[in-house]
Amino acid sequence: MADHSVHFDVTPDATALSETHPPTVRVPTGTLVTEAARLAGIDLGQPCGGQGRCGRCAVQVTGGDVRRRSTLRLKQEDVAAGYALACQSVVESDVTITIPLQEKIERRLTTERTAIEVSVPTGYSAAAQTMRRVAVQLQPADMQDQTDDWSRLQSALRRQTGIPSLSVSLPLLRRLGGILREQDWAVTAVIETDTWDHPADAARLVDLVSGHVPDHAPLWGVAIDIGTTTVSLWLVDLITGAVRAQVAEYNGQISRGEDVISRIIYSSKKNSASPLPSGEGGLIELRDLVLKTINSLLATACKRVLADPASVVKATIAGNSTMMHLLLGIPCESIRLAPFVTAVNHLPVLPATVVGLHIHPEGSVDCLPGVASYVGADISSGVLSSGLDDAEPMMLFMDVGTNGEIVLGNREFLATCACSAGPAFEGAGVQNGMRATEGAIEEVWINNDTHEPTFRVIGGGKARGVCGSGLIALLAELFLTGVIDRSGHFNMNLSSVRVRRGEHGPEYVIVWAADSQTGYDIVITHVDVDNLMRAKAAIYAGFTVLADKVGMPLEMAEQVLIGGSFGKYINVEKAVEIGLLPDRSWDSFKFLGNTSVRGAYLALLDRAARARIRDIAGRMTYIELTADNSFYEAFTSALFLPHTDLSRFPTVQAALAQNPKNLSKEE
Amino acid sequence: MADHSVHFDVTPDATALSETHPPTVRVPTGTLVTEAARLAGIDLGQPCGGQGRCGRCAVQVTGGDVRRRSTLRLKQEDVAAGYALACQSVVESDVTITIPLQEKIERRLTTERTAIEVSVPTGYSAAAQTMRRVAVQLQPADMQDQTDDWSRLQSALRRQTGIPSLSVSLPLLRRLGGILREQDWAVTAVIETDTWDHPADAARLVDLVSGHVPDHAPLWGVAIDIGTTTVSLWLVDLITGAVRAQVAEYNGQISRGEDVISRIIYSSKKNSASPLPSGEGGLIELRDLVLKTINSLLATACKRVLADPASVVKATIAGNSTMMHLLLGIPCESIRLAPFVTAVNHLPVLPATVVGLHIHPEGSVDCLPGVASYVGADISSGVLSSGLDDAEPMMLFMDVGTNGEIVLGNREFLATCACSAGPAFEGAGVQNGMRATEGAIEEVWINNDTHEPTFRVIGGGKARGVCGSGLIALLAELFLTGVIDRSGHFNMNLSSVRVRRGEHGPEYVIVWAADSQTGYDIVITHVDVDNLMRAKAAIYAGFTVLADKVGMPLEMAEQVLIGGSFGKYINVEKAVEIGLLPDRSWDSFKFLGNTSVRGAYLALLDRAARARIRDIAGRMTYIELTADNSFYEAFTSALFLPHTDLSRFPTVQAALAQNPKNLSKEE
Repeated sequence: MADHSVHFDVTPDATALSETHPPTVRVPTGTLVTEAARLAGIDLGQPCGGQGRCGRCAVQVTGGDVRRRSTLRLKQEDVAAGYALACQSVVESDVTITIPLQEKIERRLTTERTAIEVSVPTGYSAAAQTMRRVAVQLQPADMQDQTDDWSRLQSALRRQTGIPSLSVSLPLLRRLGGILREQDWAVTAVIETDTWDHPADAARLVDLVSGHVPDHAPLWGVAIDIGTTTVSLWLVDLITGAVRAQVAEYNGQISRGEDVISRIIYSSKKNSASPLPSGEGGLIELRDLVLKTINSLLATACKRVLADPASVVKATIAGNSTMMHLLLGIPCESIRLAPFVTAVNHLPVLPATVVGLHIHPEGSVDCLPGVASYVGADISSGVLSSGLDDAEPMMLFMDVGTNGEIVLGNREFLATCACSAGPAFEGAGVQNGMRATEGAIEEVWINNDTHEPTFRVIGGGKARGVCGSGLIALLAELFLTGVIDRSGHFNMNLSSVRVRRGEHGPEYVIVWAADSQTGYDIVITHVDVDNLMRAKAAIYAGFTVLADKVGMPLEMAEQVLIGGSFGKYINVEKAVEIGLLPDRSWDSFKFLGNTSVRGAYLALLDRAARARIRDIAGRMTYIELTADNSFYEAFTSALFLPHTDLSRFPTVQAALAQNPKNLSKEE
Repeated sequence: MADHSVHFDVTPDATALSETHPPTVRVPTGTLVTEAARLAGIDLGQPCGGQGRCGRCAVQVTGGDVRRRSTLRLKQEDVAAGYALACQSVVESDVTITIPLQEKIERRLTTERTAIEVSVPTGYSAAAQTMRRVAVQLQPADMQDQTDDWSRLQSALRRQTGIPSLSVSLPLLRRLGGILREQDWAVTAVIETDTWDHPADAARLVDLVSGHVPDHAPLWGVAIDIGTTTVSLWLVDLITGAVRAQVAEYNGQISRGEDVISRIIYSSKKNSASPLPSGEGGLIELRDLVLKTINSLLATACKRVLADPASVVKATIAGNSTMMHLLLGIPCESIRLAPFVTAVNHLPVLPATVVGLHIHPEGSVDCLPGVASYVGADISSGVLSSGLDDAEPMMLFMDVGTNGEIVLGNREFLATCACSAGPAFEGAGVQNGMRATEGAIEEVWINNDTHEPTFRVIGGGKARGVCGSGLIALLAELFLTGVIDRSGHFNMNLSSVRVRRGEHGPEYVIVWAADSQTGYDIVITHVDVDNLMRAKAAIYAGFTVLADKVGMPLEMAEQVLIGGSFGKYINVEKAVEIGLLPDRSWDSFKFLGNTSVRGAYLALLDRAARARIRDIAGRMTYIELTADNSFYEAFTSALFLPHTDLSRFPTVQAALAQNPKNLSKEE
């Protein structure tokens, strides 16, 4: 095959450009533009995982030409102007490619602004800990007592702790003699007394330093939640149990796909032309990306309290099953394909060095247990955090992020399912959707008569798009003001310039180009409405099927506990109005924030909490929604606003009665 | 400091020359010639560890000059001719250095010639094994059973073996899904059911392959003995217990010191100018050298039976404490310095990858337990192999290699000590001493009247030197024929041209220059005799002190069990005559060969044997000979031929009575 030169022109402030690579590369005929870009050190975002679905990798061919396999999401005039989807176009001659200004993926560190107050569990003492710090003074060796160093240390520790014997790694044994003699046989040891998979007879020496460390000095651990979108990390002093720093950052894998399915597809790619030293394809690339995120968060958190990351001796990690597999570099294609099984739900405790976490080299990493392909450790952990597993009344727990997982139960039983809601509520698959960052419309109201909107923008400036909570509000408002009917169809007879026929059919203009940050109209289209309705229908159908399967009416759930970052922003009233959440009184909803990281924190602190998560994962009955037709039926019934069966939403029914416009197309 | 060029001229057949480095290097003033040589890729042998004691690194300065810190072991005319000890001379100007033809260190692979017949222990069955192979057929996953792969495999193995749960490494988990699906969910697992440090609750998946491996296919293990001089390796089929290959090779560390003390000193060196990529000094260099020897033996043994080294799942290793520390890269200076303690006697079972053994990456390495700095795992292992620990009568076990270790006891008690015999019996510290290889005189007889010798040379050709068994015979013959007296002094009044005054005082000529391979006379000097007498006295003193300490006369020991390669070659009669071995009837001596590797083999096969070694190491009472004066007194008394107290050697006394020449200088 012939080689061609590919020259990249990069808009000066394009963010993802590496400064170390030349912008011209030579590649063989048939090379994907994304591959060529990567060779040139240019990181093109591919939220859909390089499937040509999202249109985010559009580039402009300004010299030569490429062959376009697909032009989905490109307008005719775009193609005429030379635009091509980098992930769908191959090089067939020498070309010059201009990278347009990409939407910058903002780093949103959870600083003091979003850190939440965490109280140490009542009655916590370091005795609940598996990591134990012990200061000992050894008798020096002499000709009357020639005991070897390691036995001598074990004896001294045995006298002080009662632990009969310890295991130890070779690297630590190598340093042992020097450490013992450095401060006249006075040392401080950190011992892992037990782990969940070896509850007894498995004490291990984790760290040994010369001299006596003061009792009040912190002993560090970290609790981590790997979300598909955001990774959160809490730095914890295991002696007091106090959370000393909370940090969060976008998962570095985002540029390789926004949802778990895109990530799995990306992970299966063999990037032979990959510039990565590993050359092992997408799986290793994704693993390295999330490790980079975690290790950078670790460094940030430690810096904040002047701790050395290498002094962190223990990590607990929660996350959905795909995130856990990707973190560990375990192939996860089987999660995506029927019969949807994971490689592993209950992971053994792993050495930090094997995982790639830059904590203490002898530190242990406890990846919390999941239940199924789409009900992962984030949910086991979330259930613990919510207390659902110990509740007397029946409760509903939901975690809506990129996917929607639901748990119904109490101390007697736990049933769970996952609904493929898709990432619509995270702003993906919606023309002007975006994440909840600066410039996002997060709340919308539409005037019932003029159909003019008012809205609130995060950061207060000009709007760039609409985030999840904004989309829920927008959908509810469009519906309640009669812009769309119960099945989501636009009323084209309204006398509003904002309702119009656009490129993709009917749409509503929220912000005119002149007032937007992008210089284009910000709209919500018929297609967007459809996507949002499918997402909310999937979640509501999950509720109803789960209740049916366990033979309990949904109304019996006394509380609806909402975990995940999604819960932090949404307006419950609007969510009920569109039929996303069941129609319950205000006080039955409880927002718990990131229950996954909180569960990981509890498991980090207390071996009893860790055992309880294992118990929860073991007790949860997983209902596979695709196993029969009931989910499809429930989903179809929920594809109306708020639902086919209006009697399920009495408060919405009452609101509509006051404003009968939108009952025009009743089922 | 100024830089100087060092140019090396190498005699064409000098063996240790690397072909990849240029023979000229530039080094700063003050650089040791050995360092410069290493930078030039020339490996100068340093049997004494670079201490200037052995004289083996002598080089000729043929241009420029060096500063000699010491010229020990060099003759005046050698120095005049430009000779210098490379380890004791530093570069101070541009120099040209000629490397003389070095004694080649022959590689003596134990092939069929030296392989010994090993019978599988009676009643051995694979149930004694900690490694277990299991073929299983799993139920494929489907929508009715979405159990994760790892739980599915564990369930199937549980049904077949009763093992409740397994641990597994991350690398194996990564390959799990693929292996299960490769041959329709038919797989063969290798499970380590238990290890000595985790006798229960610690089953681990070691290997998993797709399809069903036939029951009779071998499952490989290796037993290894790391001697200071020789490393032995047995390749074993764990299913049948049969030893399928036996190989041995010189320990690659020999060129860095012949005895453990030289090795320890070498291990402490920081070779900043080391050409090794590690740059971490002598310890890592020595570790790498022995690993290279072991891995090469492993490859040789596996090749012989067409096995893949990566299919070896288990290794047991015996060796003295210094060898064990060096293998694992554990600093061992404390072994050499009072109060002589090791870093560790009882090592945990270690992963092969951590040790650096090129067996299966999930294979385990069990380094057998030692007792003290100078009574290592080779002795624990040897005691097991000898059966001493289970004997009714009292017995004496000895292993004389570079050091001499002695065990006295039976099933009731075990006492042990180590005598610093030095390497004289291995040919070191003796002017014409050499190892038992081609060209070595291994047996000598001296005519009582003419004092003319007859001798046998290994390989049958011309002699190059005298090996250990030859030296013992020579000493006995010199004594019995009156060439030397009971205190080792030469009788200069003999009418034999072979007894003369040489460079180092009185000496006896065994081979004239014309008949030797070297072209020089082969002699034994007064200094050599002295060294040999000190060595034999140290060992015999060990016997007597040990017997005294346990309060039993030495005569109570019914058998003398001799382990180690030393025992294979010596003539017991001669050894008794010089007072090296106690004066007992022929049938009380039993030669056991390499008891260390045989003990490692037994421990490899059977968890009960492994537990017994642990028990032996725990039961042995170590007597530190330097702790009081008794050893020194016993040593002094033994510095005569055969001993100060002739009544201890009645048969020798009888022989001398027939030939009273050598009673001239009675004590």
